[in-house]
Amino acid sequence: MSAAATPATGQDRLWSVDEHLQDILAAVRPLDPIELQLLDALGCVLVDDVTVPVSLPPFDNSSMDGYAVRVADVAGASEEFPAVLTVIGDVAAGAADPLRVGPGQAARIMTGAPLPPGAEAVVPVEWTDGGLGGGPVSGMRARSLAPEGASGEVRVHRPAEAGAHVRAKGSDVQAGELALAAGTVLGPPQIALLAAIGRGAVRVRPRPRVVVLSTGSELVQPDEELADGQIYDSNSFALTAAARDAGAIGYRVGAVADDADTLRSTIEDQLVRADLMVTTGGVSVGAYDVVKEALTAVGDPDEEGGGVEFRKLAMQPGKPQGFGSVGPARTPLLALPGNPVSSYVSFELFVRPVIRTMMGLEDVHRPRTRAVLQADKALTSPAGRRQFLRGRYADGTVTPVGGAGSHLIAALAQADALIVVPEDDTSVEPGAEVEVVLLG
Amino acid sequence: MSAAATPATGQDRLWSVDEHLQDILAAVRPLDPIELQLLDALGCVLVDDVTVPVSLPPFDNSSMDGYAVRVADVAGASEEFPAVLTVIGDVAAGAADPLRVGPGQAARIMTGAPLPPGAEAVVPVEWTDGGLGGGPVSGMRARSLAPEGASGEVRVHRPAEAGAHVRAKGSDVQAGELALAAGTVLGPPQIALLAAIGRGAVRVRPRPRVVVLSTGSELVQPDEELADGQIYDSNSFALTAAARDAGAIGYRVGAVADDADTLRSTIEDQLVRADLMVTTGGVSVGAYDVVKEALTAVGDPDEEGGGVEFRKLAMQPGKPQGFGSVGPARTPLLALPGNPVSSYVSFELFVRPVIRTMMGLEDVHRPRTRAVLQADKALTSPAGRRQFLRGRYADGTVTPVGGAGSHLIAALAQADALIVVPEDDTSVEPGAEVEVVLLG
Repeated sequence: MSAAATPATGQDRLWSVDEHLQDILAAVRPLDPIELQLLDALGCVLVDDVTVPVSLPPFDNSSMDGYAVRVADVAGASEEFPAVLTVIGDVAAGAADPLRVGPGQAARIMTGAPLPPGAEAVVPVEWTDGGLGGGPVSGMRARSLAPEGASGEVRVHRPAEAGAHVRAKGSDVQAGELALAAGTVLGPPQIALLAAIGRGAVRVRPRPRVVVLSTGSELVQPDEELADGQIYDSNSFALTAAARDAGAIGYRVGAVADDADTLRSTIEDQLVRADLMVTTGGVSVGAYDVVKEALTAVGDPDEEGGGVEFRKLAMQPGKPQGFGSVGPARTPLLALPGNPVSSYVSFELFVRPVIRTMMGLEDVHRPRTRAVLQADKALTSPAGRRQFLRGRYADGTVTPVGGAGSHLIAALAQADALIVVPEDDTSVEPGAEVEVVLLG
Repeated sequence: MSAAATPATGQDRLWSVDEHLQDILAAVRPLDPIELQLLDALGCVLVDDVTVPVSLPPFDNSSMDGYAVRVADVAGASEEFPAVLTVIGDVAAGAADPLRVGPGQAARIMTGAPLPPGAEAVVPVEWTDGGLGGGPVSGMRARSLAPEGASGEVRVHRPAEAGAHVRAKGSDVQAGELALAAGTVLGPPQIALLAAIGRGAVRVRPRPRVVVLSTGSELVQPDEELADGQIYDSNSFALTAAARDAGAIGYRVGAVADDADTLRSTIEDQLVRADLMVTTGGVSVGAYDVVKEALTAVGDPDEEGGGVEFRKLAMQPGKPQGFGSVGPARTPLLALPGNPVSSYVSFELFVRPVIRTMMGLEDVHRPRTRAVLQADKALTSPAGRRQFLRGRYADGTVTPVGGAGSHLIAALAQADALIVVPEDDTSVEPGAEVEVVLLG
């Protein structure tokens, strides 16, 4: 589509929100996998099935602090008639050379320590006199303070079956089993399992690097002085934050003035660190909408897939939108409108799914639900446009905040939901059920 | 409480999960606020009310690309009988010195540009011939390509009321109004508002720095070779990931051997970067449980608030727990049990709320819901213990995964919920309603 406006031949084509989203998602692919250290892979999607190389636990081990015994030696034991066993030493967790437990013997054993040869069960220390010759004890004295606990005699007050308080080798997971399937999102428990089977790094889809730049000669950096006709740049902050919130690595580029050459060279400079470029502003029908002007030249329109197409969507806010690719690597670029509410809503609807698709996630959209409209008066919406109003959602109801104006950023900051008014509806009465996009 | 176990005088006191959590939260305070740049404050809690220093928008401005006109000049205009106005120039967004629109004149104006003196309304470019002398146009030609568009004549096809397509100064928010209240969590829309009112930095509660260290001579770093009796360290990875997931800055310290002096000096070294210390392992009744042994000496037990207390909780998994503070700054420390499932469940129940309390969040706990148990057979649970079983939650039902064993890390990685079996219940039948902690 040409950037230069010409006399209209009736109505320009309006694209639906769904058409635009489909076209975008059809053009975006998950990023190539990379190998990341476990903690860097948190929140990322596993690319390969991971099988278990070594059974968990890797060896029979004690689930309690106590004594490793032979079953026959403690058969019939009671507090009145305890089994008296000779303590041959300690088996601590990580012990390299475990003792051998013979008839009439016991080894003091710690949680996680390998069951020594000869032993068939563990009796918890609370079932014994702890080697002190008195009644039942509640624990062991620290080895460093009471080394004599590893020797002498112990009285066992209760019998134990074979395997009691023993975690059998492979009882958690067996070598060769599937640990995690490709496509799994790695949260803390999945990280735990990968570490437990000895995987220090995994192949995942990386977090996309998203470069956000706002355009507009009127934009001033926060904390600076406003001159006449100027406003503060908020879009680059909001969208960088939103990109990070969506799981991306967000880079914010300061606002670029409305000059096509400057914009073009800024974009070219940024491409090196971008898996996705997002611009705001300069996409409408004005004479200074330089994003349109600049972007047709960054991509090579002669080659398939290059260039950015600008469209009008049947949507409010967010009517003017651009999408395409730029640079030699055909880096995807979304050109969003410049009004703060328009750009934020556009981000939620179009950019967030792109980021999550690049991450390899299956669930790329914000959750939606239905809610009962709570309002003093009917909502109005232009015919033929899908409207996204800001609202607060609670317990199955949604209450509009602020009006429809795409500059109403204060109300946006009070919202946690978007109220969707379909294309065919020009009015929604209080008490009606509406579709709601949950932003939280 | 002494670290040395002694003959039991009957049953040790068991603390309830709620008692333990209450004691922990009573001792933990939100971190002192710091000033952060906007994007660094994403997800943090605002400490002060923020008022609006300058109205938004700061000046009357155009909501469309079009022409700024006087109402009388376009009264009664139609496509058949257009109002013909002299174009005196462009008012672009950010224009420092706007034109003055006199009778019979129009200024071409861009979205966001200040309404020039003399003008009372904006007519969208689509309501005009765009200065081309033909029918209605769909946009303007870029100024750089067609500078003549800023002069000549324009035919206006429709009238406009005063204020049409003009966003009035202060129509979003007025100077002096409350922009955001103290306690607000800063998401992208709140970041947008702060930037829009010129705030480049804000005072927030910082993310706590959480140092995680696991203990155990049996622990080996993933990707290294396992010798007999050794297992891979998973807790330090899982809990560091969980700390980050909860909003903290998580630092993982490699596993520390079961030696009290080494552990003590490691903790002392780490205190400089810790708002919270979390250890795993070494808290039970064994002779090598050095966390107990070491931690009574790091804090000064003579001074109020120092030292770490070790308890047994009426809970499964997660019976042995330690909580207190260490070092000269009385850095809070939670000593969790060493079994992977125990440590993870303990983290979710006790450490996550601490992190979120430190961040100043109101909502510190994982969400809970009720669900119908889907299972082949009844769940069993020990009397007097609150049991947390792993499960998968979907659409109001929860299905157990794996058994109750606290070493079952593979099943944990399939779970997205904890099934809570209260202290008084020893059995839960399929179809019964249970409380569920949602981990997702």
